[in-house]
Amino acid sequence: MTVISEPVPTPMRQAQKERTREAILAAALRLSQEQGFAQISLRQVAREAGIVPTAFYRHFADMEQLGLTLVEHSFATLRKMIRDSQRDPQVFTNIIDASADILVGVVKEHKAHFGFIARERFGGQVSVSKAIRHELDLFVSELAVVLARLPNIENWSSEDVQMVSRLFVRNMVSNAEEVIEMPDNRPDLEEEIKEGARRQMRLIVLGFRDWNSDS
Amino acid sequence: MTVISEPVPTPMRQAQKERTREAILAAALRLSQEQGFAQISLRQVAREAGIVPTAFYRHFADMEQLGLTLVEHSFATLRKMIRDSQRDPQVFTNIIDASADILVGVVKEHKAHFGFIARERFGGQVSVSKAIRHELDLFVSELAVVLARLPNIENWSSEDVQMVSRLFVRNMVSNAEEVIEMPDNRPDLEEEIKEGARRQMRLIVLGFRDWNSDS
Repeated sequence: MTVISEPVPTPMRQAQKERTREAILAAALRLSQEQGFAQISLRQVAREAGIVPTAFYRHFADMEQLGLTLVEHSFATLRKMIRDSQRDPQVFTNIIDASADILVGVVKEHKAHFGFIARERFGGQVSVSKAIRHELDLFVSELAVVLARLPNIENWSSEDVQMVSRLFVRNMVSNAEEVIEMPDNRPDLEEEIKEGARRQMRLIVLGFRDWNSDS
Repeated sequence: MTVISEPVPTPMRQAQKERTREAILAAALRLSQEQGFAQISLRQVAREAGIVPTAFYRHFADMEQLGLTLVEHSFATLRKMIRDSQRDPQVFTNIIDASADILVGVVKEHKAHFGFIARERFGGQVSVSKAIRHELDLFVSELAVVLARLPNIENWSSEDVQMVSRLFVRNMVSNAEEVIEMPDNRPDLEEEIKEGARRQMRLIVLGFRDWNSDS
């Protein structure tokens, strides 16, 4: 890095600050893959990001705040997936096939974020795992709004729509976890995960027509 | 402990050895709840179990073998649950209600084992998480044998039975995880988890009748 004695214009300094912040987040994500977020130290993150430890505090108050920001970013990826899938015209002709494709594609592209959610959901740092579970609950409620418009489900009680949304989200999380664990050289496995996801969704949707909340 | 200079009869020594082994396993389970199995050391386990570190090797070759034994014990609990549930006469009259009750009851009773599976399934020590995922796959196959006898499913292809078994096991794991996280003073939450599990199983089973593998 060159030492600049002249005052730097604000937008440039802002961009540099943003880059360092991103470098810290990426470093923490990489390190937590190896040993879990709760085990990595601020010092390790700073070293991996190429900054001195004191510079860390210009971006995050502490490791906890960094962890919570990673949770936020990981779920932003998940939310973007849902928004994009609603814009995809294929979704309206065949919601199940489209969902399976989009899920596997997005998880492959953002393995680090989805891996973070899978790994840190249990154990590790309490505030981080709590935040993840809270975000998953929110996600269930958001998906419920989408599901409530599906045929045969419009008149269900909101508890029942939540129930089926939870079933879908749990299965989605499990499929995402399988994609994360998938070795890169196994396209057959990828097709198997997609096909399994499609069939499971198809089976669940089949029950919609005959559902009776009180039986 | 009293120091015995006379040679101890073999059965007594055997019983003592078994107790120490159990103490090591319990110590590792307790410690891994706080920081994850990959982070605990042999020395910590020995201290927690009240033995000197060298005595550890009389029971386990290394920490990896200890971890794999914990996986084995945790799944033995899960298998016992399935066997017991098949013996329970209530299961034949109402398999769904019975399964929800048995699941919540067994998980509450063996929180440490189920927590170990949930926590160590991702990240942590590679051999341990691989063993857990392998055991879960086996469990899916075992449950498939039970499911294959259910009405409307007898004639399904074995791939389809595996698919639905996987759906049940994933949901079972998610429900178990909710029970583990449940605070002790929330009997209302326990009822909510059971009711959610019942409804999800009911919805999945509804689709059995109309399932067509090729559609």
